[in-house]
Amino acid sequence: MRVDGRDVDQLREVVIETNYVKHPEGSVLISMGDTKVICTATVEDRVPPFLRGKGKGWITAEYSMLPRATEQRNIRESSKGKVAGRTMEIQRLIGRALRSILDLEKIGERTIWIDCDVIQADGGTRTASITGAFVALALAMEKILNAGKIKEWPITDYLAAVSVGIDSQKEALLDLCYQEDANAEVDMNVVMTGVHHFVELQGTGEEATFSREQLNSLLDIAEKGIDELVKIQRETLGSIADRMIEK
Amino acid sequence: MRVDGRDVDQLREVVIETNYVKHPEGSVLISMGDTKVICTATVEDRVPPFLRGKGKGWITAEYSMLPRATEQRNIRESSKGKVAGRTMEIQRLIGRALRSILDLEKIGERTIWIDCDVIQADGGTRTASITGAFVALALAMEKILNAGKIKEWPITDYLAAVSVGIDSQKEALLDLCYQEDANAEVDMNVVMTGVHHFVELQGTGEEATFSREQLNSLLDIAEKGIDELVKIQRETLGSIADRMIEK
Amino acid sequence: MRVDGRDVDQLREVVIETNYVKHPEGSVLISMGDTKVICTATVEDRVPPFLRGKGKGWITAEYSMLPRATEQRNIRESSKGKVAGRTMEIQRLIGRALRSILDLEKIGERTIWIDCDVIQADGGTRTASITGAFVALALAMEKILNAGKIKEWPITDYLAAVSVGIDSQKEALLDLCYQEDANAEVDMNVVMTGVHHFVELQGTGEEATFSREQLNSLLDIAEKGIDELVKIQRETLGSIADRMIEK
Amino acid sequence: MRVDGRDVDQLREVVIETNYVKHPEGSVLISMGDTKVICTATVEDRVPPFLRGKGKGWITAEYSMLPRATEQRNIRESSKGKVAGRTMEIQRLIGRALRSILDLEKIGERTIWIDCDVIQADGGTRTASITGAFVALALAMEKILNAGKIKEWPITDYLAAVSVGIDSQKEALLDLCYQEDANAEVDMNVVMTGVHHFVELQGTGEEATFSREQLNSLLDIAEKGIDELVKIQRETLGSIADRMIEK
Amino acid sequence: MRVDGRDVDQLREVVIETNYVKHPEGSVLISMGDTKVICTATVEDRVPPFLRGKGKGWITAEYSMLPRATEQRNIRESSKGKVAGRTMEIQRLIGRALRSILDLEKIGERTIWIDCDVIQADGGTRTASITGAFVALALAMEKILNAGKIKEWPITDYLAAVSVGIDSQKEALLDLCYQEDANAEVDMNVVMTGVHHFVELQGTGEEATFSREQLNSLLDIAEKGIDELVKIQRETLGSIADRMIEK
Amino acid sequence: MRVDGRDVDQLREVVIETNYVKHPEGSVLISMGDTKVICTATVEDRVPPFLRGKGKGWITAEYSMLPRATEQRNIRESSKGKVAGRTMEIQRLIGRALRSILDLEKIGERTIWIDCDVIQADGGTRTASITGAFVALALAMEKILNAGKIKEWPITDYLAAVSVGIDSQKEALLDLCYQEDANAEVDMNVVMTGVHHFVELQGTGEEATFSREQLNSLLDIAEKGIDELVKIQRETLGSIADRMIEK
Repeated sequence: MRVDGRDVDQLREVVIETNYVKHPEGSVLISMGDTKVICTATVEDRVPPFLRGKGKGWITAEYSMLPRATEQRNIRESSKGKVAGRTMEIQRLIGRALRSILDLEKIGERTIWIDCDVIQADGGTRTASITGAFVALALAMEKILNAGKIKEWPITDYLAAVSVGIDSQKEALLDLCYQEDANAEVDMNVVMTGVHHFVELQGTGEEATFSREQLNSLLDIAEKGIDELVKIQRETLGSIADRMIEK
Repeated sequence: MRVDGRDVDQLREVVIETNYVKHPEGSVLISMGDTKVICTATVEDRVPPFLRGKGKGWITAEYSMLPRATEQRNIRESSKGKVAGRTMEIQRLIGRALRSILDLEKIGERTIWIDCDVIQADGGTRTASITGAFVALALAMEKILNAGKIKEWPITDYLAAVSVGIDSQKEALLDLCYQEDANAEVDMNVVMTGVHHFVELQGTGEEATFSREQLNSLLDIAEKGIDELVKIQRETLGSIADRMIEK
Repeated sequence: MRVDGRDVDQLREVVIETNYVKHPEGSVLISMGDTKVICTATVEDRVPPFLRGKGKGWITAEYSMLPRATEQRNIRESSKGKVAGRTMEIQRLIGRALRSILDLEKIGERTIWIDCDVIQADGGTRTASITGAFVALALAMEKILNAGKIKEWPITDYLAAVSVGIDSQKEALLDLCYQEDANAEVDMNVVMTGVHHFVELQGTGEEATFSREQLNSLLDIAEKGIDELVKIQRETLGSIADRMIEK
Repeated sequence: MRVDGRDVDQLREVVIETNYVKHPEGSVLISMGDTKVICTATVEDRVPPFLRGKGKGWITAEYSMLPRATEQRNIRESSKGKVAGRTMEIQRLIGRALRSILDLEKIGERTIWIDCDVIQADGGTRTASITGAFVALALAMEKILNAGKIKEWPITDYLAAVSVGIDSQKEALLDLCYQEDANAEVDMNVVMTGVHHFVELQGTGEEATFSREQLNSLLDIAEKGIDELVKIQRETLGSIADRMIEK
Repeated sequence: MRVDGRDVDQLREVVIETNYVKHPEGSVLISMGDTKVICTATVEDRVPPFLRGKGKGWITAEYSMLPRATEQRNIRESSKGKVAGRTMEIQRLIGRALRSILDLEKIGERTIWIDCDVIQADGGTRTASITGAFVALALAMEKILNAGKIKEWPITDYLAAVSVGIDSQKEALLDLCYQEDANAEVDMNVVMTGVHHFVELQGTGEEATFSREQLNSLLDIAEKGIDELVKIQRETLGSIADRMIEK
Repeated sequence: MRVDGRDVDQLREVVIETNYVKHPEGSVLISMGDTKVICTATVEDRVPPFLRGKGKGWITAEYSMLPRATEQRNIRESSKGKVAGRTMEIQRLIGRALRSILDLEKIGERTIWIDCDVIQADGGTRTASITGAFVALALAMEKILNAGKIKEWPITDYLAAVSVGIDSQKEALLDLCYQEDANAEVDMNVVMTGVHHFVELQGTGEEATFSREQLNSLLDIAEKGIDELVKIQRETLGSIADRMIEK
């Protein structure tokens, strides 16, 4: 029995509120249980120097937490004057994940900035960021497609992410909340496309190592979670989801 | 006639949603029109080195904007590796303002961290931050008073802030939205207590200077705005507002 | 009776020594009592990127203190690797103040750098910096006007600044020395033009709030102080002052 | 046929030269083909503040490349004033990996610093760093065990790492050199213990996603590579390897 | 014939104005021709951690230039966020030089901070800084000796510094002004004590190398310059100079 | 008798291994006793902005130590976020020294980056860096000459460096190892060309000053050491050394 009464392969309640803030081309507030992240997609009509004149675009991501998103207040990275290693890891992960389903040639010489700002954290902030950022990206692409800035729908598949882990009773769990995550022996983040292909797989056994068999159990429940998340993304996007079907 | 149809001395709609995030001792989401700020108050049971052993506490504030809180995306200060001058000015202002109504001896050797994070900006973010932070502070003080950590209510008066300005038709306006602020000839931020005393007064005429008479017009409408904001704070705080009456 | 025997509305002795250093286009050493600041104006024949090709110029200011300008030695900001919030506030204030009386179109695509370096501090360093920087700016403008680089006198009015404050006996004082400043309940900096218009007004009541009536007393003596400072500026500038009369 | 003529599941030549530098408690120069890394283990008789008085130790890792370890010269991170995200990711990975096989209670209140400095890079620098760092750590532990500083052998198992990937012909390859890595569609780093348990698994498909079946092929050849690396570690350690058998 | 009409072995006019600023324990304004440096000596009643409890003191130096001390304005090091290599070299040189004539045991557990701030530069700023800092140090030592903080005079000898160089006509010159320095083929800074012993000798032939014979010519005129500087220091110190005689 | 049994004017064993790493245009591993430095020369086909279009090149140097090159581990400069003053001094010295024997016009608009990375330190790392960097530079120049990138041999003379010092028995010593260096009263670094001309001379007497006579003794043994180093450089370069003879 899990701390919040869920089954081992059950997601927390997922809510994706679109157009949460007014300025960005695309934005959502995604909640996975008590984890809440504002994801925005900004379209800038230029690319970094290394891509100029090549006729293709770029997508990059940034991630941050409000100081009191967590139980203990964290010092702001701006005050410390540098971005923590954990933050860099996460924002590099989000960027790579989104690049796998965005056709950079179809967006032309544009940069998409994805910003994931965690306003409340209860485990799984990086996976919620990816799942939410996908929707913000789709909203932004719809906007520039409708505005005639791009000619073709540039997103090639759905993209969602979920955490899985093994607890001290050797049980494989889906979508760990903070308390579960803190006590897990193995922690894995899985990023997959709508057709069940891996984009990223990051598993860590700091407290305990894990066998190939355990890996397989984790991947089984991760696939189940990804299916459910993609379903929610599709419902959230409504008519925009039809763009994906055409692909 | 103002861009959004308001009277010259009319505030935008103000909503203060309490306990907006779950971890902090006090938190609100304050909206003044389209300006939205998450204000949190964190109570830490220790003071900076220069205050240790003196039996009194400290309050300090930090301010930030999400990158896409504005029409154009701003580079994160953590990426730039330093806090901008504007940010420092604002967080120093918020901290000073709150220190004027908090009895630091009554909170004991504790530090109160105020975090004001703007999630959507449409002018007046620093004044909304002060008005919202006051409520978050009051919620946090109620919490530690109820927990028996402190013996007496430490807040000495209400505190609210509002912007006023003079537009190109020489009209004095209350609570400028971004478009008005960008075109104003004179911009002034007024921080006052519930009994109409000034805590801070910062007026700037970059495009145009202003006369003593114009100053007086600005202060008249600022006082009106402060009265209304204090009324909303009182209603928001409900029974906690009674603590203030006892003072 | 004040600590140095002055009347409540009396300035300290003000001396402005022109051309104090040889390289800058304009320079002064201003002394207000024991506060001494070297103010220089540098004319650079280009503008920041955001102004290129717009036919107008820019003016910006930097402020610093020698480490031992004060009673206790301060760590250099270059050693700390960052500029303090207080410094940023002051240099932004100086820059804004000077922009109010300089016609940026008349200086063409040039940047004026104002450097205010405090070599001895005894209160009122930011206001002395503004008063002295005005003279350094006028000297530099005279130089480039005489050199034919600009066609018209670009300064629209005199500009001076002074501090006022309320002491623990509720007395309003003009031009506070450090000891008075440290004990003041209210501290206000007033920047005005030669025709008594406000450019900046910054009042802070950290220890105590202040009423509208007290504000008026402070502004009365500030105006008197500004008048005297402008008179000294005019005498210091000699024939250059005639340029101002033509305006 | 691979660029260097190897079979798809063949490692490059691996050489581990022990005691490569004289000052550290343990050091090696590991070569995997043309990738060469100096790995050192430093034992410091104190722990970071958060561990003081808890009777256990800590191990942390740092990673760097000489500027011209690569085909193009890289700017030093010390010149840039900050550590790159990629570097942080790698050093966090090395540290976590080693923590999985070191009993921190058995080393007492000591910090082990692992430094991995790449002097020549040809792909797989992070996995070579882990494989080499394990040997440097074992040498350092032997030294302090012999010196009587610790009572029991603290390393619980062998630890090695290898890269695997999928090339454009959908072939799974073991131990990619730089040219193969640059062209791979999928890149995966596998860190395992001597008993074939996973410590870390990091797979990325930036250019192409990968199926569960492909994942299994990659893991099969990775296990083969790990076996061979552990064999080389055992031979390199000689009599110290007997400490591991006792476990 | 030199650019300013001096003989090859002639110093520029040297003026040392004592107690130039009021707060420091010792201060001077030294002018060597148009090079002007404010040198201050601050006495702090504690030592850095590595010296605590050892019964001896420390002396350290910092050096900076006002932005417009030079013909072209320099960006402040505080704005750049780091201290330039040239600045570090100079402040390390000044510190080492003063350590050679100060008995650190006689000053007890105190730190002497030397600050050399160039307000106008015309070549030889580092040597003027050393010559001036010696006097500021002596003034500060006299002050704490008179105050009974130390028991014995801690300065063991005079200390002065001068630049010498070889111009394009292979002529050895004493005390180069900026224009001479910029055109010199060899540049050397000599720091000596009152008894003609070397403390530092730094010669550089970037444009041209120099022979042993040329080295000897440079040292001959440097000794002459040092003699004259020590004489001026002695006259400046007046009765304090008698402390040196007792040594 | 010296700590390692050498005569007072005897160098440690010097070995220069060429082409130590494969990517750079020139590289060596130089050992002077237990001091070991990897020196690389990188040729970049462009120059810094201040030299563009002038038809000449640039050479610059960087220096670093691996954290455990020394008895005590040093914190990486990349972790500290800034380059130490000592490092800056050394890399500026290496750059200036090499500029004295490289004809920058003959290399065209190219930048030569010299990287000196100390992998093991036992005194004299900066002088070993210069001696080794000279050979790496010559190898790189041979490579681009053979490739037809430059037309003429651009190196004008040999360049070597050595440390000398005076120990507590007032004995002048050549090529100090770390233990001797730590105990020396006077420490001097001498950089000379093949024809015995000085390029740099840096002598410091922190613990004790030194007379003109002692200076001469130091220079005598330094010249002997330089002769021997140049002989080793010539033998190491083999046929490339003939390029120097042609000069």
